[in-house]
Amino acid sequence: MSNANNPAPRRVAVVGATGAVGREMVEVLHRRSFPVSELRLLASGRSAGKVMETPYGAIALQEFSVDRVKDCDVVLLAVSGDFAKAHAPAIAAAGPLVIDNSSAFRYDADIPLIVPEINAAAFDVSNGGGGRLIANPNCTTAIAVVALGPLHRAFGLKRVIVSTYQATSGAGAEGMAELEEQTRNRLEGRPVTNSVFHHPIPFNLIPHIDAFQENGYTKEEMKVTWETRKILGLPDLPVSCTAVRIPTYRAHSEAITIETIEPVTAEAARRVLADAAGVKLVDDTANAVYPMPLTATGQFDVEVGRVRNNPVFGDHGLDLFVCGDQLLKGAALNAVQIAELDL
Amino acid sequence: MSNANNPAPRRVAVVGATGAVGREMVEVLHRRSFPVSELRLLASGRSAGKVMETPYGAIALQEFSVDRVKDCDVVLLAVSGDFAKAHAPAIAAAGPLVIDNSSAFRYDADIPLIVPEINAAAFDVSNGGGGRLIANPNCTTAIAVVALGPLHRAFGLKRVIVSTYQATSGAGAEGMAELEEQTRNRLEGRPVTNSVFHHPIPFNLIPHIDAFQENGYTKEEMKVTWETRKILGLPDLPVSCTAVRIPTYRAHSEAITIETIEPVTAEAARRVLADAAGVKLVDDTANAVYPMPLTATGQFDVEVGRVRNNPVFGDHGLDLFVCGDQLLKGAALNAVQIAELDL
Repeated sequence: MSNANNPAPRRVAVVGATGAVGREMVEVLHRRSFPVSELRLLASGRSAGKVMETPYGAIALQEFSVDRVKDCDVVLLAVSGDFAKAHAPAIAAAGPLVIDNSSAFRYDADIPLIVPEINAAAFDVSNGGGGRLIANPNCTTAIAVVALGPLHRAFGLKRVIVSTYQATSGAGAEGMAELEEQTRNRLEGRPVTNSVFHHPIPFNLIPHIDAFQENGYTKEEMKVTWETRKILGLPDLPVSCTAVRIPTYRAHSEAITIETIEPVTAEAARRVLADAAGVKLVDDTANAVYPMPLTATGQFDVEVGRVRNNPVFGDHGLDLFVCGDQLLKGAALNAVQIAELDL
Repeated sequence: MSNANNPAPRRVAVVGATGAVGREMVEVLHRRSFPVSELRLLASGRSAGKVMETPYGAIALQEFSVDRVKDCDVVLLAVSGDFAKAHAPAIAAAGPLVIDNSSAFRYDADIPLIVPEINAAAFDVSNGGGGRLIANPNCTTAIAVVALGPLHRAFGLKRVIVSTYQATSGAGAEGMAELEEQTRNRLEGRPVTNSVFHHPIPFNLIPHIDAFQENGYTKEEMKVTWETRKILGLPDLPVSCTAVRIPTYRAHSEAITIETIEPVTAEAARRVLADAAGVKLVDDTANAVYPMPLTATGQFDVEVGRVRNNPVFGDHGLDLFVCGDQLLKGAALNAVQIAELDL
């Protein structure tokens, strides 16, 4: 491991570079001054040869193959779960640190699932023979645990109930484009259609993200349960989620109710959150200041506010409202932060 | 009380007839064939003399005074709390049944607060000397209790946690107009402003409806607590709410988590809800059918779906998602249904 103050530059590859998350990965590498000696952008054959403008200059897209990334130091995957399953192990076996944004490996006991502010210790540079493959969490979970982690350390979590207000960016660039285009259609009186989402999204909401499971929850909702438990190291923590798509562009909001093990006050919780890494406490209700997509978009920190005692759980109940950029803390930023653990 | 099958026609007044709720009251009277012998539309002096097109023909708006409505049988108030406080008691003392959509009288122990499907028994035609004044509940509460009431009767409610997705109609016609106009501005690259809402609403959400209270909850959130307790007759029921404005037009959605006193299953809850008055069970996830503003708008029934066991409360936990038209069950419809109790 190099000196963190003067780390050796890395050869970095972004696979899926033309998607909404891939593009943000390139931007975030630059915004955080990640030491890049060479940046390779990989995409489908369809995009190969096209040139992408980046903060590192114009870079020609290459069609992905394991051979084209196996000599890199870091490979960031912004691809589907199936694609990741097919290729990530081979890349990792060849040497690079692989950080996968899909859900393909998140629930493997052997694969670390990391939000650096919360469980950086799970990053084990010596996980050896099988290579170094790290899973990047679900966006909703990553945003939530930045607040839940410090609250757990301070007060202990007994129960967690989450209702989400998720942006169209969760469905990629196509999701955002469908929101914009169909909103125009609706305002101009033209027919409104949908292909990315299950129903028209303009001026609507859709309580259906990812596939429904046997228990009535969607996979998106269960990801919040499974991944919150794994990241916090609380395998039995009761967590439930209602995941709802709303007509916003790229920041996810969440209304979170927790029951704590130790008594909690809003004031004590606010003190904890004010000091928490990755959290921006925006909780000045007298001046109408609280988390919103309008302010959280483009920010690295997760906005946390509306902190109050929830009387449903007596003096062990707390409500909070969080909002984080789905493409940043919910995806690209967290992936780059994981890569930084290796510097 | 007349024969409900052939009730005597009523002289009806709608006060605040030009607002979003007032207009819907006129429409709902007609859609439900309320026996109207005469319809008077009252508004501010500014509107007096203007003619409003209604299903009953064109009707000239009159400036409000108590004298102009005191000989009516039913007076529906779609006015501010201050206006209601100033005038409702005088109207009721003169004889008419007065149904007030504001929050002015909802928390008076002597004033019934009614959602007819749930607590019609609270309608007491002989509440005598002070006249007959009935409060119409907060929109979010009215929509929620249509589902919560039957679930309470079947399983008993121990705790209720609500997160809302509220439409701009909650801020009246001006709210809906601001959503549309500012969304156009945003799409055309013009400056986006706000005057009805605390912040710009297009492609945003605002976790702030009505004024903040000392306990960190907004008054809108506390209304859900206070009014749910009063309507269900459970003065100590723990209820908490997070109320959020989202960029939709006129149907409010709510993610509701309950803990029950008796064990509950999703299947048993679905059977109860399928038979509940005012509820339309829309819970066919295999076919992507669940409550949405797109489908609930314009409907009298409240859509209820996403019914599932919430493991956070073991076999006593239930999650559901409800969506109801804020201007109908959340306001005008419920007011007319209260008037129907007097037929």
